[in-house]
Amino acid sequence: MKIQVIHGPNLNKLGSREPDIYGTQTYDSINQDLYAFAQSSEISLDCFQSNSEGDLIDKIQVSGDSVDGIVINPGAYTHYSIALRDALAAVNIPVIEVHLSNIYQRDDFRKKSITAEVCHGVISGFGINSYFLAIQQLLIIHQT
Amino acid sequence: MKIQVIHGPNLNKLGSREPDIYGTQTYDSINQDLYAFAQSSEISLDCFQSNSEGDLIDKIQVSGDSVDGIVINPGAYTHYSIALRDALAAVNIPVIEVHLSNIYQRDDFRKKSITAEVCHGVISGFGINSYFLAIQQLLIIHQT
Amino acid sequence: MKIQVIHGPNLNKLGSREPDIYGTQTYDSINQDLYAFAQSSEISLDCFQSNSEGDLIDKIQVSGDSVDGIVINPGAYTHYSIALRDALAAVNIPVIEVHLSNIYQRDDFRKKSITAEVCHGVISGFGINSYFLAIQQLLIIHQT
Amino acid sequence: MKIQVIHGPNLNKLGSREPDIYGTQTYDSINQDLYAFAQSSEISLDCFQSNSEGDLIDKIQVSGDSVDGIVINPGAYTHYSIALRDALAAVNIPVIEVHLSNIYQRDDFRKKSITAEVCHGVISGFGINSYFLAIQQLLIIHQT
Amino acid sequence: MKIQVIHGPNLNKLGSREPDIYGTQTYDSINQDLYAFAQSSEISLDCFQSNSEGDLIDKIQVSGDSVDGIVINPGAYTHYSIALRDALAAVNIPVIEVHLSNIYQRDDFRKKSITAEVCHGVISGFGINSYFLAIQQLLIIHQT
Amino acid sequence: MKIQVIHGPNLNKLGSREPDIYGTQTYDSINQDLYAFAQSSEISLDCFQSNSEGDLIDKIQVSGDSVDGIVINPGAYTHYSIALRDALAAVNIPVIEVHLSNIYQRDDFRKKSITAEVCHGVISGFGINSYFLAIQQLLIIHQT
Amino acid sequence: MKIQVIHGPNLNKLGSREPDIYGTQTYDSINQDLYAFAQSSEISLDCFQSNSEGDLIDKIQVSGDSVDGIVINPGAYTHYSIALRDALAAVNIPVIEVHLSNIYQRDDFRKKSITAEVCHGVISGFGINSYFLAIQQLLIIHQT
Amino acid sequence: MKIQVIHGPNLNKLGSREPDIYGTQTYDSINQDLYAFAQSSEISLDCFQSNSEGDLIDKIQVSGDSVDGIVINPGAYTHYSIALRDALAAVNIPVIEVHLSNIYQRDDFRKKSITAEVCHGVISGFGINSYFLAIQQLLIIHQT
Amino acid sequence: MKIQVIHGPNLNKLGSREPDIYGTQTYDSINQDLYAFAQSSEISLDCFQSNSEGDLIDKIQVSGDSVDGIVINPGAYTHYSIALRDALAAVNIPVIEVHLSNIYQRDDFRKKSITAEVCHGVISGFGINSYFLAIQQLLIIHQT
Amino acid sequence: MKIQVIHGPNLNKLGSREPDIYGTQTYDSINQDLYAFAQSSEISLDCFQSNSEGDLIDKIQVSGDSVDGIVINPGAYTHYSIALRDALAAVNIPVIEVHLSNIYQRDDFRKKSITAEVCHGVISGFGINSYFLAIQQLLIIHQT
Amino acid sequence: MKIQVIHGPNLNKLGSREPDIYGTQTYDSINQDLYAFAQSSEISLDCFQSNSEGDLIDKIQVSGDSVDGIVINPGAYTHYSIALRDALAAVNIPVIEVHLSNIYQRDDFRKKSITAEVCHGVISGFGINSYFLAIQQLLIIHQT
Amino acid sequence: MKIQVIHGPNLNKLGSREPDIYGTQTYDSINQDLYAFAQSSEISLDCFQSNSEGDLIDKIQVSGDSVDGIVINPGAYTHYSIALRDALAAVNIPVIEVHLSNIYQRDDFRKKSITAEVCHGVISGFGINSYFLAIQQLLIIHQT
Repeated sequence: MKIQVIHGPNLNKLGSREPDIYGTQTYDSINQDLYAFAQSSEISLDCFQSNSEGDLIDKIQVSGDSVDGIVINPGAYTHYSIALRDALAAVNIPVIEVHLSNIYQRDDFRKKSITAEVCHGVISGFGINSYFLAIQQLLIIHQT
Repeated sequence: MKIQVIHGPNLNKLGSREPDIYGTQTYDSINQDLYAFAQSSEISLDCFQSNSEGDLIDKIQVSGDSVDGIVINPGAYTHYSIALRDALAAVNIPVIEVHLSNIYQRDDFRKKSITAEVCHGVISGFGINSYFLAIQQLLIIHQT
Repeated sequence: MKIQVIHGPNLNKLGSREPDIYGTQTYDSINQDLYAFAQSSEISLDCFQSNSEGDLIDKIQVSGDSVDGIVINPGAYTHYSIALRDALAAVNIPVIEVHLSNIYQRDDFRKKSITAEVCHGVISGFGINSYFLAIQQLLIIHQT
Repeated sequence: MKIQVIHGPNLNKLGSREPDIYGTQTYDSINQDLYAFAQSSEISLDCFQSNSEGDLIDKIQVSGDSVDGIVINPGAYTHYSIALRDALAAVNIPVIEVHLSNIYQRDDFRKKSITAEVCHGVISGFGINSYFLAIQQLLIIHQT
Repeated sequence: MKIQVIHGPNLNKLGSREPDIYGTQTYDSINQDLYAFAQSSEISLDCFQSNSEGDLIDKIQVSGDSVDGIVINPGAYTHYSIALRDALAAVNIPVIEVHLSNIYQRDDFRKKSITAEVCHGVISGFGINSYFLAIQQLLIIHQT
Repeated sequence: MKIQVIHGPNLNKLGSREPDIYGTQTYDSINQDLYAFAQSSEISLDCFQSNSEGDLIDKIQVSGDSVDGIVINPGAYTHYSIALRDALAAVNIPVIEVHLSNIYQRDDFRKKSITAEVCHGVISGFGINSYFLAIQQLLIIHQT
Repeated sequence: MKIQVIHGPNLNKLGSREPDIYGTQTYDSINQDLYAFAQSSEISLDCFQSNSEGDLIDKIQVSGDSVDGIVINPGAYTHYSIALRDALAAVNIPVIEVHLSNIYQRDDFRKKSITAEVCHGVISGFGINSYFLAIQQLLIIHQT
Repeated sequence: MKIQVIHGPNLNKLGSREPDIYGTQTYDSINQDLYAFAQSSEISLDCFQSNSEGDLIDKIQVSGDSVDGIVINPGAYTHYSIALRDALAAVNIPVIEVHLSNIYQRDDFRKKSITAEVCHGVISGFGINSYFLAIQQLLIIHQT
Repeated sequence: MKIQVIHGPNLNKLGSREPDIYGTQTYDSINQDLYAFAQSSEISLDCFQSNSEGDLIDKIQVSGDSVDGIVINPGAYTHYSIALRDALAAVNIPVIEVHLSNIYQRDDFRKKSITAEVCHGVISGFGINSYFLAIQQLLIIHQT
Repeated sequence: MKIQVIHGPNLNKLGSREPDIYGTQTYDSINQDLYAFAQSSEISLDCFQSNSEGDLIDKIQVSGDSVDGIVINPGAYTHYSIALRDALAAVNIPVIEVHLSNIYQRDDFRKKSITAEVCHGVISGFGINSYFLAIQQLLIIHQT
Repeated sequence: MKIQVIHGPNLNKLGSREPDIYGTQTYDSINQDLYAFAQSSEISLDCFQSNSEGDLIDKIQVSGDSVDGIVINPGAYTHYSIALRDALAAVNIPVIEVHLSNIYQRDDFRKKSITAEVCHGVISGFGINSYFLAIQQLLIIHQT
Repeated sequence: MKIQVIHGPNLNKLGSREPDIYGTQTYDSINQDLYAFAQSSEISLDCFQSNSEGDLIDKIQVSGDSVDGIVINPGAYTHYSIALRDALAAVNIPVIEVHLSNIYQRDDFRKKSITAEVCHGVISGFGINSYFLAIQQLLIIHQT
């Protein structure tokens, strides 16, 4: 099984970025954990990050034709990128939206997700475990 | 580890209730699966369901003093019960909110969760797996 | 034919409760008239009242499996109880929503009915006749 | 007893107009049923239809001085014609608003009725029976 | 003089519930203070608490026929329970709404009180003294 | 000088229509007073009334080419007829909007005037005197 | 007959203040015209202007006990001063609100008048003639 | 192929009506151009204009049974006539909505089209060419 | 203990101002009762009233440095004076907001208090007793 | 004449992307048709697509200095990209906005176009014909 | 060059007023710094403060005729005083609005400035430096 | 001291872009002036411009680790880019937001700045001087 992890804007600064909200684990360390987790589950996994809405859409489009599932943390684009939403709506593989923090506990404008409306489901608030749970769930969907 | 699962209003009708949204698995069968899953993870788990806001609050209050974590599907109360929210805010154990369906894909009034603001995190859209993932996550929190 | 009449919160105080809006006929007297009307139409009818959202949902769930139609006056729950709405949406028998007063002539927050969206139809403004007309209509649906 | 039935805009196209919402019975056939029903109840009944807001107001004004009750289906004007509302508010006979479909189950802008605020009551969702129930109720009011 | 004190949802957890907002005095201790205060004023006082909207309405209805005044802290129901409001509107004795905390200093959704619109007055922000002031005021009304 | 007075919907029912708001003077009597007032001021005046938005627009269009000023009471159309507004915006003679009652003291939806935005000015609240003041003002504009 | 004219904030700068909106006639010249008009109608008239909400309220309170009518141009206070509104609501003599410009043709926030809701009527858009028409109307009311 | 062109309110005043927005070409001249264009494309075309909402609905209803396509410029009714919308929704031939000006560049209330929701498509901003493009498109649909 | 009572705009007209809302007791008489009450409690009390937002702020600023507590009835400024709010937020002594009438039972715009957000608490609806209860509460705070 | 066609985000996936909305014709095939159409009209045409807001702005800026007209389908950016809007507002050549689907028949957030406010006109709902009609119209503007 | 500095309500309490937001420098000390800064730049500068909306308007009006530029910190009036806005709009000299704190980082109601709409520009967030930068900018404008 | 100036979308077209709003000075000339100003203040300054949200975020992230302060004109992204806001919130050096025009004097959607909420302060309306003032202020902060 092949899974594409897509990290949205500013996630590459994890560890130094607002650590009281996002924790102190660095972006590189998170990706290492994701690769390790995938390896142990015999999943082929790739991590991609971009601050650019366009690049994220490009990656979603390519992934739609080449992998079996997407785990996406759209970051700030969660709340306003209709273009990202349209890209997600156009792929025919399961997509799970994840967030490190619980988006319901933050600014009002972060409580709305327009990308979630076209995803299979949402996991929010468990730090890196949000990704692990999403990968597990994709695996289950894949095996069904 | 002890976990209380709390099912909100109308979840006792699963299987016959709008099966295109909630699936055909019955409420009893779901609970059996939850007990089996807990047993295999050496978790002591109890399932409770009520259509009454007051009874749900009573159960949350008791659970706050007697278990190690709560998995709650507040059903329709998700969207308007400030009383339920206050009950959840008053317990000092981790609470995870789950939904069978992806609440972002339904009526506009279901996209808002006022209970999620006081929960540890939210898992939405994976059917009974939403509960399994939440239990797993509570286990991880418990072990940390 | 079996019909369940369900009276929502505060309807048990009819006669003494704001009589300029709801009239002076007592709750008991209304129920007697309903039973008499049913008897004359050879309908088996039961009246139930509760102030509790949970109890009303319980009754709706049971009625969905045991009667041929429901006449419900959800009272104040008309305007905010998504849980009641979900209960009504889950039954497979015709449900008619009735109101003693014309809800459009009162407070702004009473002009919205979220339960009506999942009912067969609505009759509002004719005092106890609202119930009689609803029963008649259920009879017609039953005979079709 | 004399009753004026007033059909609002586009109701003359019943039978061919969006039959999945409004049914396949034609406008002429509905009127025939209404006349038959009235005759059996010894009511003198007249049916009027117009697509014009002005003509409908003219008819309401005349009816206010010549009949004992009005059954009106204001169609689309239900949702925005303050002029129609003012005409209805100015007559001193009982007016009942009816709708073939349940207006709460349709577009958001159809859930609001500004004419209902000045009517005696509203019956919505029972097809042609909405009219029959309204006529019955006018008869009861007339006899009181 | 007989006064019914009615505590709404989650007030039974006072002392342990969010003590930075509600203080550390326990629910039982508060009631003891209320009874002592009443005794010293020669008032017959009863305290009732429930998490259930329906039970609170039941108690209000009974109190309306058996006591001379009500002091109610509707807790979270303050902000959305139209059913509670209707129950309060139906009693013919003075009702005073009290809050431990100043509801204007908290979440936006707590600044709105729909129950206060049908109460005699509101006292908010003085901890248990809010209750004492309300009892004093009921006494004055009673003596007038 | 030639002035066209245009009365909007339901004004033909003055005298019998909600007399506590609009007074008991009949429509015919008001017009007689307007003709008398005009004659005394050596103004050629015509009064027109219609319940039809289209007829009112027709009259405005014709007036734009044939008289020196318009006094219009758009009645209920004041609040929603963009078509009437467009007709008024297209004439090159002064138009004054008048209302018998003070529209600020009535329903919220009557506080908004979309026609006033394209009129010379507005006079509201003085009964038939609103018309007299408007005619006077048109005379002054005409003489300047 | 005694009339108090009250000019609100910034009206003392007429002539130099945004002359394309308010005209080039100076404040002093307007007052002279008002005094001349009053004299010719045998009215005792006084003009008062202040930029201070408090001083305007003081003047309204005094006028309520000493004159027969008030003509007020509340200027910017029209749109937000509830205190001014309360002062106007408390006097028992007729008050007419006037505006030099047509407030409906300007910024959206100027289309709302909260003072007009407690005035006898409103005249807006005719420059100084708005005042003349108001005085005339007060005279008529006084003579009735 | 037969096409009905329907011009809404105030379009008969083109040429003299706000020429900076709508241009100086007269209504008659526009119709002549439309007839000429139709003739050159061997289309049978009829132009209809009315200021009356009811007459426009009548014409739409008749056209639905007698022509192959409709080009409609609903004018001001675009923004609020639900009745017109319902009439358009009821015909089974393609309807194209056109506007002379770009409705997005004007008042906020003109940016909303409730009729467009039930049309095949919309062409806005090209003067009389909006009509020509619509006719061309109807021809293409007709030939497919 | 020293307490400053601050009466906002229009309160000096009590007795004659809308007596059905505010009662018939005059402003002077209310102050006399306040002084008597203070004397009996050995409190040094001063009453101040102004219609001017600026003067009220001046008095609050001075009081913050010279008394032990403030009882303020901000009148209409309750609902919009951010400047008053800022003044109250800047003092370091307890401030209690009082209202003669229950502000929740009046116009919608009176249900919002922006000053209450920075006060210790609010007492609303008990006529002059609102002030007495506030003074009592300040005394308790002072003694703690 | 030189025309730049600019396709916004996700349009490169046409054919496979939600074909019930956007049709089954592929992006490449659409471009071929556009080139063919241009060639037949002796227009020099270039097609550009990007998922990146920044690249689309870059292309608009360059086009503003190098071609005679722009046909743009801004895709999802239509609804929120103020940056795109600013880029379009800054070019001095005619720009026509096109959409394959009728944006008024889709999600509410798609009914708003913030780019259309700065375009010459809009053509929406005719599939690839929307582009052809726009090119034709640019040709006409160019020849005028 | 002559500059008028105008400090709005509560700024006279700087130093003691909410020092975590506004700093500990006293109002007098700030003015001394402003005078010193002005002297070093050979600017004639005057500082004025009032808590009264009316006095601030008076000062603006006088300044408009006597100085070369205004630096104003409208304090709380920034957010609601249309009267202040009108006064600023009426002067023909450059006005710069300043704020000590960054108004975007505070309560939602402080993010809106209705006075800024009529000022030359806004400087917000730099403590007393906001004033210095404004004075510098006025000097530059003056020299141009 | 090292400062990064970041120009947002469309600022590279200054000089030709809507010169009545943004002036006629070209982008290159502005940068030259900025470099000259920096040199005279012994500041090391770099100017960066991009139309791409992603590139701007990249630059902010790099700058956060390599310079002492940022002056950013986010252009249109000011009003909707939460991603840009998050990038700014993540840097630990002072950031000042600048605008050439006074954003309060333009379209309503330009009055809101979501980036300003995480900046040190905002300077708006002074053309290129907005940048100079920001640089000066950064220098002062740096020296403190």
